[in-house]
Amino acid sequence: MSIKLFDTTLRDGTQREGVSLTAEDKARIARELDSLGLHYIEAGFPASNPKDLEFFEGFDASELRNARLVAFTRARRPSGRAEDDPAVTLLARLSAPVACIVAKSWRMHVEKVLGTTPEANLESVRDTVAYLVAAGKEVIFDAEHYFDGFREDPEHALSVLRAAAEAGATTLVLCDTNGGTLPTELKAIVARTVREFPGVEIGIHTHNDAGCGVANALAAVEAGATHVQGTMNGVGERCGNCDLVATIANLQLKMGLEVVDGEQLRRLTEVSNYVSEIMNITPDAHRPYVGRSAFAHKGGLHVDGISRDPRTYEHVAPELVGNQRRTPVGELSGKNSVRAKAAELGLEVRDVAAVLSAIKQREHEGYHYEAADASLALLIRRTTGEDEPLFELESLRVISEKRAGGEATVEATIKLFVRGERVISTAEGNGPVNALDRALRQAIEPHYPELKGIHLSNYKVRILDEHRATAATTRVLIDYTDGKRVWGAVGVGTNIIEASWQALVDGLEYGVNGAKKNH
Amino acid sequence: MSIKLFDTTLRDGTQREGVSLTAEDKARIARELDSLGLHYIEAGFPASNPKDLEFFEGFDASELRNARLVAFTRARRPSGRAEDDPAVTLLARLSAPVACIVAKSWRMHVEKVLGTTPEANLESVRDTVAYLVAAGKEVIFDAEHYFDGFREDPEHALSVLRAAAEAGATTLVLCDTNGGTLPTELKAIVARTVREFPGVEIGIHTHNDAGCGVANALAAVEAGATHVQGTMNGVGERCGNCDLVATIANLQLKMGLEVVDGEQLRRLTEVSNYVSEIMNITPDAHRPYVGRSAFAHKGGLHVDGISRDPRTYEHVAPELVGNQRRTPVGELSGKNSVRAKAAELGLEVRDVAAVLSAIKQREHEGYHYEAADASLALLIRRTTGEDEPLFELESLRVISEKRAGGEATVEATIKLFVRGERVISTAEGNGPVNALDRALRQAIEPHYPELKGIHLSNYKVRILDEHRATAATTRVLIDYTDGKRVWGAVGVGTNIIEASWQALVDGLEYGVNGAKKNH
Repeated sequence: MSIKLFDTTLRDGTQREGVSLTAEDKARIARELDSLGLHYIEAGFPASNPKDLEFFEGFDASELRNARLVAFTRARRPSGRAEDDPAVTLLARLSAPVACIVAKSWRMHVEKVLGTTPEANLESVRDTVAYLVAAGKEVIFDAEHYFDGFREDPEHALSVLRAAAEAGATTLVLCDTNGGTLPTELKAIVARTVREFPGVEIGIHTHNDAGCGVANALAAVEAGATHVQGTMNGVGERCGNCDLVATIANLQLKMGLEVVDGEQLRRLTEVSNYVSEIMNITPDAHRPYVGRSAFAHKGGLHVDGISRDPRTYEHVAPELVGNQRRTPVGELSGKNSVRAKAAELGLEVRDVAAVLSAIKQREHEGYHYEAADASLALLIRRTTGEDEPLFELESLRVISEKRAGGEATVEATIKLFVRGERVISTAEGNGPVNALDRALRQAIEPHYPELKGIHLSNYKVRILDEHRATAATTRVLIDYTDGKRVWGAVGVGTNIIEASWQALVDGLEYGVNGAKKNH
Repeated sequence: MSIKLFDTTLRDGTQREGVSLTAEDKARIARELDSLGLHYIEAGFPASNPKDLEFFEGFDASELRNARLVAFTRARRPSGRAEDDPAVTLLARLSAPVACIVAKSWRMHVEKVLGTTPEANLESVRDTVAYLVAAGKEVIFDAEHYFDGFREDPEHALSVLRAAAEAGATTLVLCDTNGGTLPTELKAIVARTVREFPGVEIGIHTHNDAGCGVANALAAVEAGATHVQGTMNGVGERCGNCDLVATIANLQLKMGLEVVDGEQLRRLTEVSNYVSEIMNITPDAHRPYVGRSAFAHKGGLHVDGISRDPRTYEHVAPELVGNQRRTPVGELSGKNSVRAKAAELGLEVRDVAAVLSAIKQREHEGYHYEAADASLALLIRRTTGEDEPLFELESLRVISEKRAGGEATVEATIKLFVRGERVISTAEGNGPVNALDRALRQAIEPHYPELKGIHLSNYKVRILDEHRATAATTRVLIDYTDGKRVWGAVGVGTNIIEASWQALVDGLEYGVNGAKKNH
């Protein structure tokens, strides 16, 4: 059975609160999605949004090697003609070879929201689909609120699909628009619908409002659907769309369906992170298959089991989806796990005992290397005398001031030696760590131009012994990225400024030296 | 059909990377979970962890009105006797009335990881369960890797369950430990197992590695399981456990099973947020049912549809789970809740609209009053002109310095007027907030001797927009106590020092004036 994958990250995914993509962002994401071997990329609703129009007018669909480019719109208004509806004629004019047309299939919606009759709605579907087919487009039809509609009036819901099929739509997509249908009911409705349309491709479009977005897509495939819509990382309105990442992995690795090739599947983790990056969404460490923690094994028992047989604690091999096994050092039981961890970081360790004892000492002080590979790599290098610091600190000072009724102001001054030169750098910021970060970059960037491509992507603070209140130890975790990789650094101390400083320095040093050695 | 809910947030949930809970945190979360009407609360693995032991020794299980308290351990080692295994005898000794015992049910694990024989494993299960039953405990049996084990050797997997049942376990829980089983296969295995154990309660414990944690729990219930294990918000190792929040809502609102009562169901959103807060995990705005965006409607079309009939774009009514509908405009709907909250704080509010609008504005800036009663009370008093500040600030300054090879030093200077007197106070500290706290107390304590009995008990920091990295907004939560009561204060700003200052001042003012008025 061949399954078609339809990605709507760039259309339905952008309904997520706070997401905003430029035409250029969309082009970059579309190329990445194409490299995954997806069959369709729906990139926007050009009649609704000038940025989407800019994308469709500027992007050359023939650039895509695997996917067909899709533009979206609604069926024409209940009164009028498709050829007079600017949203519809726009799709005929654009070069995207596929049009995705949505229309209502829930009778209650037709009557209460559209305020029209079922027959006028059917006529709008027929007219719109036929017009775009005549214009040479492949037409995919999205039946909005299909499951709610079917529950209320199955014959009405089916009649809408029939209108689209008769007018030439190649695929009829059943949409669980409100996202609340559970798998067992959804599967029964899909199976019933598949029987009604022999020879027509049936698709599924689910949302995650009941936490079953992925399971619903799989249930639909088991019931005979052969076209699956979703978004990267499940981004979308409310609780999001079906996560296409987990869906692809499940279809291919668990259900034995060849949806993409092995090389494309291995790109899943990278593409998932890339899309998060461009959308400015913190990647979910716990995301199925591709999260940073998805194959993290705590504790000696698991590590030991994995070394005997990976199946003991892994449901699939992480490399198949381009992820990797991690043994968080929080629980490093012994020398073997240090060696394994060092190898994972591309380091060779001569004195394993010294490294292990340095790690234990640091962990006792509150350091935590689970999410701080950069600091761990530097700790190993420092222990073995192999680190290359970017600069030598002379002193730093941060002054934070506030006057009654005024804004707080912050200023940081750093004195350091970088490649033999003494530099004094002062910068303001909107907080103490921000000021310090600016002053440091200002001081050393002239000597390390590669720092321009490295930026902070995440800053977390954890108070370790909350009961010691303001005298408690603070742990700071900072993530950096160069747009391709992400690495974490940690700092600890009772003074949050000092703890942040340690993490800032580790993160930048690893960015510069790690890049040098690993590439 | 009656379904038992088993929460393991405090045991399996703490396997999530980076989570660490004190005994006091566990007690607070357990009380909240109890208010949801859950049937079992598994609170830790006391033999593995001194903090868990401290919790079980200090917490009075009879405090729980709905739930039975559960302690967890593994079946005794293959050789030896239960009565000589300290992890097992510990459970017999503790006051928690329920013991949850895990053992391996996958033959490959028994042989490769335990390095023993199936028969020795069965004997360990029988001996451990029988010993704890004889000690008067209710025993729930977790069959680890049940689905992988069943796939490989069904008879072996069933034999492990049989051993536990024969020894007196009341519930046999089928665990998808690696989290990779898909719903259709899982459902078939559960159905088959249910048939094998007429009259015995069968439970389900799923993980989210394939993105189907919730769907798998529902599939198991459809197949006859009557006991469901999961965690609040799905926290857990790797990709997390089954999210009990969405599961409860689905069972109750979609599958027609009365698992909790309507009042308890309405607490779901609040408890979900509370648990995130204590675990120091940013609540997922897109979480099914309880996320801030779960019922957010963009655009006029949806808002218009909702006003005609909420079913048009909502799969359930948000109030049923204590959440609320959000629309970008016109969200003023909470006057009654302000009145109720004010009454709870012992305040009378004349201009409710002004207070509501002040709260909304503050929340928009990132303030969060759920755990900050002191700041909320002061906000209400300030809005109505009734607050009595302890002092008037002239200025404050914090200097943090560090020299190469030396310790960081911090000093804070505060200038203020207290009861007409101008005071200048300078103090050192081991961090900027600690120095500020000391300088402030030093300045005003002579005028408010009652401050000597008030101290900080907790200090938490949350970075609100982690992506903005060091320029992000910081939210500080400080708890104070006078030994009898505990109250919380909140501060927000890009500068952590300024945000901490706001919370310090609110907490002390409420401590002095609140005590005066309420006692």
